[in-house]
Amino acid sequence: MPIKVPIVDDSAKITDEEGGRSEINGRRCSIPRPTNPMVSPLLTDLYQFSMAYAYWKAGKHLDYGVFDLFFRKNPFGGEYTVFAGLDECIRFIAHFKFSEEEILFLQSVMPSCEGAFFDYLRELDCSDVKVNAISEGSVVFPKVPLLTVEGPVAAVQLLETPFVNLVNYASLVTTNASRHRIVAGKSKILLEFGLRRAQGPDGGISASKYCHIGGFDATSNVAAGRLFGIPLRGTHSHAFVSSYMNPDEILNKTLQSSDGSFTCHDFVRLGHDWLSKIQKISSLNGIFGETNQSEFAAFTSYALAFPKNFLALVDTYDVMRSGVPNFCAVALALNDLGYKATGIRLDSGDLAYLSIESRKFFQAIEKELGISSFGKMMITASNDLNEDTLDALKKQGHEVDCFGIGTHLVTCYGQPALGCVFKLVEINNKPRMKLSEDVSKVSIPCRKQCYRLYGIEGYPLLDIMTMKDEPAPKVGERILCRHPFIESKRAHVVPQRVKKLMDCYWHGNSEQLRKELPSLKETRDVCNEQLDQMRPDHMRKLNPTPYKVSVSASLYDFIHFLWLNEAPVGELR
Amino acid sequence: MPIKVPIVDDSAKITDEEGGRSEINGRRCSIPRPTNPMVSPLLTDLYQFSMAYAYWKAGKHLDYGVFDLFFRKNPFGGEYTVFAGLDECIRFIAHFKFSEEEILFLQSVMPSCEGAFFDYLRELDCSDVKVNAISEGSVVFPKVPLLTVEGPVAAVQLLETPFVNLVNYASLVTTNASRHRIVAGKSKILLEFGLRRAQGPDGGISASKYCHIGGFDATSNVAAGRLFGIPLRGTHSHAFVSSYMNPDEILNKTLQSSDGSFTCHDFVRLGHDWLSKIQKISSLNGIFGETNQSEFAAFTSYALAFPKNFLALVDTYDVMRSGVPNFCAVALALNDLGYKATGIRLDSGDLAYLSIESRKFFQAIEKELGISSFGKMMITASNDLNEDTLDALKKQGHEVDCFGIGTHLVTCYGQPALGCVFKLVEINNKPRMKLSEDVSKVSIPCRKQCYRLYGIEGYPLLDIMTMKDEPAPKVGERILCRHPFIESKRAHVVPQRVKKLMDCYWHGNSEQLRKELPSLKETRDVCNEQLDQMRPDHMRKLNPTPYKVSVSASLYDFIHFLWLNEAPVGELR
Repeated sequence: MPIKVPIVDDSAKITDEEGGRSEINGRRCSIPRPTNPMVSPLLTDLYQFSMAYAYWKAGKHLDYGVFDLFFRKNPFGGEYTVFAGLDECIRFIAHFKFSEEEILFLQSVMPSCEGAFFDYLRELDCSDVKVNAISEGSVVFPKVPLLTVEGPVAAVQLLETPFVNLVNYASLVTTNASRHRIVAGKSKILLEFGLRRAQGPDGGISASKYCHIGGFDATSNVAAGRLFGIPLRGTHSHAFVSSYMNPDEILNKTLQSSDGSFTCHDFVRLGHDWLSKIQKISSLNGIFGETNQSEFAAFTSYALAFPKNFLALVDTYDVMRSGVPNFCAVALALNDLGYKATGIRLDSGDLAYLSIESRKFFQAIEKELGISSFGKMMITASNDLNEDTLDALKKQGHEVDCFGIGTHLVTCYGQPALGCVFKLVEINNKPRMKLSEDVSKVSIPCRKQCYRLYGIEGYPLLDIMTMKDEPAPKVGERILCRHPFIESKRAHVVPQRVKKLMDCYWHGNSEQLRKELPSLKETRDVCNEQLDQMRPDHMRKLNPTPYKVSVSASLYDFIHFLWLNEAPVGELR
Repeated sequence: MPIKVPIVDDSAKITDEEGGRSEINGRRCSIPRPTNPMVSPLLTDLYQFSMAYAYWKAGKHLDYGVFDLFFRKNPFGGEYTVFAGLDECIRFIAHFKFSEEEILFLQSVMPSCEGAFFDYLRELDCSDVKVNAISEGSVVFPKVPLLTVEGPVAAVQLLETPFVNLVNYASLVTTNASRHRIVAGKSKILLEFGLRRAQGPDGGISASKYCHIGGFDATSNVAAGRLFGIPLRGTHSHAFVSSYMNPDEILNKTLQSSDGSFTCHDFVRLGHDWLSKIQKISSLNGIFGETNQSEFAAFTSYALAFPKNFLALVDTYDVMRSGVPNFCAVALALNDLGYKATGIRLDSGDLAYLSIESRKFFQAIEKELGISSFGKMMITASNDLNEDTLDALKKQGHEVDCFGIGTHLVTCYGQPALGCVFKLVEINNKPRMKLSEDVSKVSIPCRKQCYRLYGIEGYPLLDIMTMKDEPAPKVGERILCRHPFIESKRAHVVPQRVKKLMDCYWHGNSEQLRKELPSLKETRDVCNEQLDQMRPDHMRKLNPTPYKVSVSASLYDFIHFLWLNEAPVGELR
């Protein structure tokens, strides 16, 4: 007969408190709720519940299972991945509790299941579950567990789908962002503009969060700015430009000077005057004639609204013949009032060429009119950018300071899914491994320890997994590192530094035994630091060198012993 | 000076009522809230707010703008798209209202903006906005507006990002699902198994919803089942199988017969007996020897839990040498007690071959043991399936009845984004069009009417856009249909049926003037019916025939008049 799990508190309930914190089964929880309120214990596959019921029926639901969450192949043809999503997993587990309404729904879906099973679910929380994990933002590699989740097998099984969901896309898009950052270089500003093309609302919101972790400076997504404190950026669209017919539409033409000392009563005219003046600058001669007046009106109107942050989209009509001259006229008018314009955005055409020509135009104005630093005007580029176009632009030469990247970044166009899996590696202290014809799909059994070994130059040399109880590799001591499956692949390593990769982030009821969740900024710093630490040939876009993931000699022997003995007769493949 | 919009109610607030309905500015709203609670008016790009401020500063925010939401190219190399996301857009607009906390956040982000602007936002709702749209689930084509949104330009501009976000992925994944359905054929059961690989939690939840609209029968996603009433399906995983060591672990071996007339006290032994018996069936001779006992234990345990729905994953060890014989033994034991097993799931290997071999095995049992319809046992296949593999399986021949599809379906691996755009087509009754060097990027100006013209065989012939005030095309009357940009492309059509494509789904405060939102089932029916109606050559996977989208002669002339006259001198490209 199924054994009932101990009841922590008769009046099991979740109480809302300030900041999304809550009380579960009478135990106070200091961890915020999942960012997306749709993340509930029902956000899982039905089969997790049917398995839980089968375990429960067999009296096996409290068997102690250990599961590894890992991936098998780095995305985007690269040789590294950035791990993300841990914070959301821990929030999920901390608040794991079925509402009565959810229980009733489950009952309606599984009408043949005994009522006592639902009583078990009613009492279920994750106070018997333990999560060890690599720190979020870390550079990680195939086969090494990102998280190890252990506890009563039925409960842990229910976590599989939400954990994989929360880690898969998070790690994928963080990795994608980091790849964009590496190609763009540290000196460029990177803006995430993906909300409109993202896969659903929190496809957009998570993209903003994880792109920031992966190295983006700011986002256009206001909701993400509010939720995570990510800097917000944005100017105006083509529709704004074409919504103006001509400057007469601007009713309020007044603008006070930056220091408040005087007021310009016709800012439109001031801009027009500058337009005529720059037309006469000899070095700009012939570049433009009459500029588009609806565009001039839109720019003027925008400058009146944002004199301190004037940034104009210059490609609605013609960048060099209309957009840039119109922008400069308005920027010079602002300059008269003591304001410094921010710059332009290019959203179409040959971005390398247009950025260089725009730069020349700005520099000509600086030189001819003696307006200091006008030549350094910020040039932002957008329009279907991705890692490849950033790379091509760089090789070609350009004058872009800031890139706005959307679709390709947030949908991970190059590879829209990371294949994270969640595999049973031990049950009731007995190791389990999944066999497969495909060696890359064989899982590594047992509770393990994982270390990163660093070489003399400070770069990580390889990761090694050991049996849980083996002593840790020691600095200066030679250790044999073996490929987990291929006998001939082995190397002796003398590490100059040894880093234990996993920490405990959830330990049932105990707040003491678990590591605090870092802030978004701390995670971003971890990511940045770890990317910097890697040997550049692992990180490069073209033909990167694979980073080695190994097992200790003991673990190797154990895997192969199991492989021979666990595989049923006639089934060893 | 900015004009204040009329205040509907001084005590502007949103009150929660039953079923997610609410009161906005004292007006009761019969439309449910957006499914994802993260969908708020802040779920937009910052530049929508900077533009709104610039409009407001210029006193232009109440100018009447008309925007079209459309896409330029069908996804997945196909020649059609299914429109979805409308329901969520209308929910969004119906509940569009800033909370005080959101206002304060915006103020902190835009500190240079005047306080009165935030008072304007405080009062803002969509009671002056109108949305015309094609019905959700419709088959649609490039350039034709899916939605036309009109109203005060600043307010409508704020809707751009959320609308595009809500339509883009919804339409993409519905289209993807419909393509899978077309390739699989109507007789197959299609299950969506994508939650774990989806782009975030509601990447998963929306995928389940829209895949159901696009033709999938059920999902594994319990949260989506609850939210939308989609049928749920699921069995067990490899971890379940490998969590069992041997049948002795099963503590409760008792199973009552289906009719309750007797009880089997050792169901494990009954299964074992059957295993020995089928081993002796001559036509199965040599297929298998000793089967895996951990797998046998898992199957038995699962059958004890779900005697009425016994479906086993048979590929953990070896499909033909262990999984299928183990399954049959347990299924035959169930049969003794009056239960009919459901079937098997294959999750690796050569699905065509394994399904055919499994079918033969089942048929041999039916024949040799006289168990009626045992040969018809349902075979489900999963493992990285997509449109191409479904197609290949079909060409090759297989015995699969049901497909479980995940990663490729929900992330839209083949093309993870649809390029929906939102373009200003009219302001204060003046037409606007976006010019571009690339003709495919030129937008079609003006408020328009859209019709689908049907031919004598009942198939749609083409879509035609006309000027708002033109008379509708008439059945039996010849009408000239022109390519919007290419002069030589034109055709005379005599429609046998004319369907107006757009209806009003939101009309400010008026509940009377708008069409009711259909239920999910109704939308699913629309989709199914419209897919059936299309001429097959538009829908086929290989080299589909493009469907024609045209404009009336008057609209054609008007576009080209504008193109010549609106483009600033020297800028016509």
